[in-house]
Amino acid sequence: MYRTHNCGELNLNNKDSKVTLSGWVQKVRLLGGMNFIDLRDRYGITQVTCNQDINNEIFELSKQLGREFVIQIEGIVKERSSKNNNIPTGEIEIEATHLKIINSSKTPPFTIEEKTDGGEDIRMKYRYLDLRRKPLQEKIILRSKMSAEIRSYLTNQDFLEIETPFLIKSTPEGARDFVVPSRMNENEFYALPQSPQTFKQLLMVSGYDKYFQIVRCFRDEDLRADRQPEFTQLDCEMSFVDQESILNTFEGLMKHMFQKFLNVNLNDFPRMTYEDAMAKYGSDKPDTRFNMQFVELNEQLKNKGFVVFDKAELVVGINAEGCSSYSRKQLDKLTDFVKKPQVGAQGLVYIKYNEDGTFKSSVDKFFNSEQLQEIAKLFNAKPGDLMLVLAGNKDKTRKALNELRLEMGSILNLRDPKVFSPLWVIDFPLLEHDEETDKWHAMHHPFTSPKKEDIHLLDTAPEQVKANAYDLVVNGVEIGGGSIRIHERELQQKMFSALGFTEQEAEEQFGFLLGAFEYGAPPHGGIAFGFDRWAALFSGVESIRDCIAFPKNNSGRDVMLNAPASINNEQLKELNLSLASEN
Amino acid sequence: MYRTHNCGELNLNNKDSKVTLSGWVQKVRLLGGMNFIDLRDRYGITQVTCNQDINNEIFELSKQLGREFVIQIEGIVKERSSKNNNIPTGEIEIEATHLKIINSSKTPPFTIEEKTDGGEDIRMKYRYLDLRRKPLQEKIILRSKMSAEIRSYLTNQDFLEIETPFLIKSTPEGARDFVVPSRMNENEFYALPQSPQTFKQLLMVSGYDKYFQIVRCFRDEDLRADRQPEFTQLDCEMSFVDQESILNTFEGLMKHMFQKFLNVNLNDFPRMTYEDAMAKYGSDKPDTRFNMQFVELNEQLKNKGFVVFDKAELVVGINAEGCSSYSRKQLDKLTDFVKKPQVGAQGLVYIKYNEDGTFKSSVDKFFNSEQLQEIAKLFNAKPGDLMLVLAGNKDKTRKALNELRLEMGSILNLRDPKVFSPLWVIDFPLLEHDEETDKWHAMHHPFTSPKKEDIHLLDTAPEQVKANAYDLVVNGVEIGGGSIRIHERELQQKMFSALGFTEQEAEEQFGFLLGAFEYGAPPHGGIAFGFDRWAALFSGVESIRDCIAFPKNNSGRDVMLNAPASINNEQLKELNLSLASEN
Repeated sequence: MYRTHNCGELNLNNKDSKVTLSGWVQKVRLLGGMNFIDLRDRYGITQVTCNQDINNEIFELSKQLGREFVIQIEGIVKERSSKNNNIPTGEIEIEATHLKIINSSKTPPFTIEEKTDGGEDIRMKYRYLDLRRKPLQEKIILRSKMSAEIRSYLTNQDFLEIETPFLIKSTPEGARDFVVPSRMNENEFYALPQSPQTFKQLLMVSGYDKYFQIVRCFRDEDLRADRQPEFTQLDCEMSFVDQESILNTFEGLMKHMFQKFLNVNLNDFPRMTYEDAMAKYGSDKPDTRFNMQFVELNEQLKNKGFVVFDKAELVVGINAEGCSSYSRKQLDKLTDFVKKPQVGAQGLVYIKYNEDGTFKSSVDKFFNSEQLQEIAKLFNAKPGDLMLVLAGNKDKTRKALNELRLEMGSILNLRDPKVFSPLWVIDFPLLEHDEETDKWHAMHHPFTSPKKEDIHLLDTAPEQVKANAYDLVVNGVEIGGGSIRIHERELQQKMFSALGFTEQEAEEQFGFLLGAFEYGAPPHGGIAFGFDRWAALFSGVESIRDCIAFPKNNSGRDVMLNAPASINNEQLKELNLSLASEN
Repeated sequence: MYRTHNCGELNLNNKDSKVTLSGWVQKVRLLGGMNFIDLRDRYGITQVTCNQDINNEIFELSKQLGREFVIQIEGIVKERSSKNNNIPTGEIEIEATHLKIINSSKTPPFTIEEKTDGGEDIRMKYRYLDLRRKPLQEKIILRSKMSAEIRSYLTNQDFLEIETPFLIKSTPEGARDFVVPSRMNENEFYALPQSPQTFKQLLMVSGYDKYFQIVRCFRDEDLRADRQPEFTQLDCEMSFVDQESILNTFEGLMKHMFQKFLNVNLNDFPRMTYEDAMAKYGSDKPDTRFNMQFVELNEQLKNKGFVVFDKAELVVGINAEGCSSYSRKQLDKLTDFVKKPQVGAQGLVYIKYNEDGTFKSSVDKFFNSEQLQEIAKLFNAKPGDLMLVLAGNKDKTRKALNELRLEMGSILNLRDPKVFSPLWVIDFPLLEHDEETDKWHAMHHPFTSPKKEDIHLLDTAPEQVKANAYDLVVNGVEIGGGSIRIHERELQQKMFSALGFTEQEAEEQFGFLLGAFEYGAPPHGGIAFGFDRWAALFSGVESIRDCIAFPKNNSGRDVMLNAPASINNEQLKELNLSLASEN
């Protein structure tokens, strides 16, 4: 037997017991005739002493130990003379009576400590060593416990976890599929699922009215920072429900998880329409930890002679409380910020509401004090505040002001990672127009149902059609999204046609689903949560990579495995494939 | 709200309540002025009455209903006059006050009943309808509950479920990988994992000492009946354990599951060495629900003048109790059975131990009564028994006799599907020799550790090296298998070299693992269970397909989706691929 206890559980209750521990050498400290070993496993650290006077052989052997050696020790639990109250095992130590080196270790390429000296690249290559570090370990364990809790919560509510296939059919719509050549079916390919969407809908047609799955999904996108080609989703679907039941069911799950893992009790989640979110925050995932809502000023600021405002589609601003004393330099920095290509504004107008009640603005030429006073009222601004105004094309200006608002929120420390502000964004548009291809795309996906009262607009004014679609946003991050689905063949066909599918294309790609709708499909809807992102939120980190045991880098590579890699010609030949560039 | 209750929960306690139900029309029976609807969902069936005298409008509408229509009814719970005690809702019926047709249904291509009139092919195509049928539904739900229970059991024992990647690196060893061309890394491919083997070992190196995962695996094999290109595994690994702890841990899980789902309390699982299993049953997965063990008879039957025995490497038989009265015809049938190419014997020798104590055999010419008496003793045969003997090459004869034994077990009804006989088969050989390539293969996989005392034989007598490998067999079906792994670089390299890898090949393919073993790898081992197979065992069916929501057929096709399928040239071009046959 390798161990009687783990390295995190012994305390004074075990005093004088004979125990066996196994683990890794975290540290060795030689103090005169005594060698102290910090022995580590995933449960904790236990101090071991090898005393020259008690057992010289063990003492000598212990001097050979290096960091990360795997050892087994037998010994007696003793009370420590100098206790460490920071760790659960800090009151005891093990006086070693046997010591065995199970496996040695080369010196690791970086230190296995809370704060390591290793850079990102080397830690990715030696991921198995990085995973030993406490900060990463805590995230992997938290993630594991989160998935266990989600499963148990949903199972207790009669949800069934049902597995859906990974080798499916490619659909050219939307993001790119990863494909898998089939050897048995020459010149044909499977695709890896971007989500189990159509399968969960078929399960609803089959009568499994409460489905969930924690499931891997795949998307062959050009990777942006913090995107992974494979990612994990909590995928859910219910039958005989309206939007209200779905929102309530998963708000319940979310509250439970916050309570369980972060000890945070959340009130009922507010709801906001997409339209409001865009108007008030310039984003469909607003960070509502702080207010600083947009104020639209067309009426007040246009046609007063300032050409920038006059020709703008939208003049809109935010009020930064207590910032009226910003210096020229600080204001220039904000102007530079909004002019960055990613933000995209042309310039920034400021209106200082000075402590003494006077105004100072970059548009003093065009607006008198009274006019500025009126504007300040619209902002609910007080003396000491700073109003920041952007103008231009509506969508672009909102987007830019969203960035500025988030920046101000950060500067003013209004985005505390320990504060959680959830929000349901509802009533998304059904379709969005792609300027490039002049085509309509489904904003959520082609299976999302339009609001009943808008269906008649599908042919005439598709941009006005609202969908039964909703996102869950927490602290400005989209954690989940879903919709009530179409469950009638006719409406689904109408939708495909609005998306530019010919009848034949629709049949070829989604014939099985259209067919299924003809045999008694129930009303249904669902939601999917980005589980990596959710785990990152609960871990208090920005990067999802820290919450994935073996992530890929920004080029989609696993640098530890060195994957992807070339395959041999025999494999290619069996698959009836050749590399185009080699022809 | 679509429903206040489901179709399986109402009973006399709800008498006179006003309820709303939604579901599928299972059946409609018109009896005079009354229309009876059987309303179905996954929870059960509830009878609904539409009474002409009470509400003629509803009565008329109900006449339009067909099978599988989706409807919503509102009504009052009434006590039935003629009760049905076979179903939980059998004492009540709902007197409809509102009826709404939510969705209609075409006539299904086969009946949605326990016993359907649909053939396999049509049911695969309309899988979403087949999944409505009770027998399939029960299996899908059982499987879901099994996975929930496994997760909760292992989580309660400090196991962590940790997700491992699906886009990994191809290794030419063993079964064929499915590969995934990478668009971002030109001319390179990912592979889909055949199992998370190396990742779970790395997790052990990382210190996550109790890991499990219910995970999809992929194998591009020529499909035999009842193999799927994608299958689900319960994958487990532990550190600081010996074989004994692993066997005990998972025997505990197994017993728990049998108790929970089948109400079967199993005794401690017997253990048998591979060598014994082969000698006594001719199989490494013996069906131990019945005894009928092999008796080897070289000493008694060889060199007595019967050339078939004399030139045989092995003469071996079984005793079929109570079968001495088998007719010529019955014996011929058994002879035909053993001569089938899949069984492969040359002929069958029988020895009848007649009720009157005399013997009658097909080898009376060569053996006298006393000799046959002596043989009967070896078989522990009694008057009335029938001994069946095969002779020839050792391995082939054992294999053939295994088939005959199973056949006799079936004929004699000794293989009751309600009886469960688990068995650990242990001490597998480390290597097996491939005649075709004249190479040694790992019997389990290249990471399995040899028994310490056999390591010295690796170079000189590899066939004699035993492994720390074990299988769990239930009723002749391999449910799981695993091993204690190698955790030292040197031994792993020795193993790769025994398997014919050059040092460079080993480094190229498994360098990350060899590297990991240099940084303090703990002793570890694990096991993996075929979850589809396990679900089939608990469902009492032979075919794993019945326990998979959306399985593929024997050509690896999903006939519902029509996948795999061709992809368009643009997709191919982006992947830098061309179809070889089209060049």
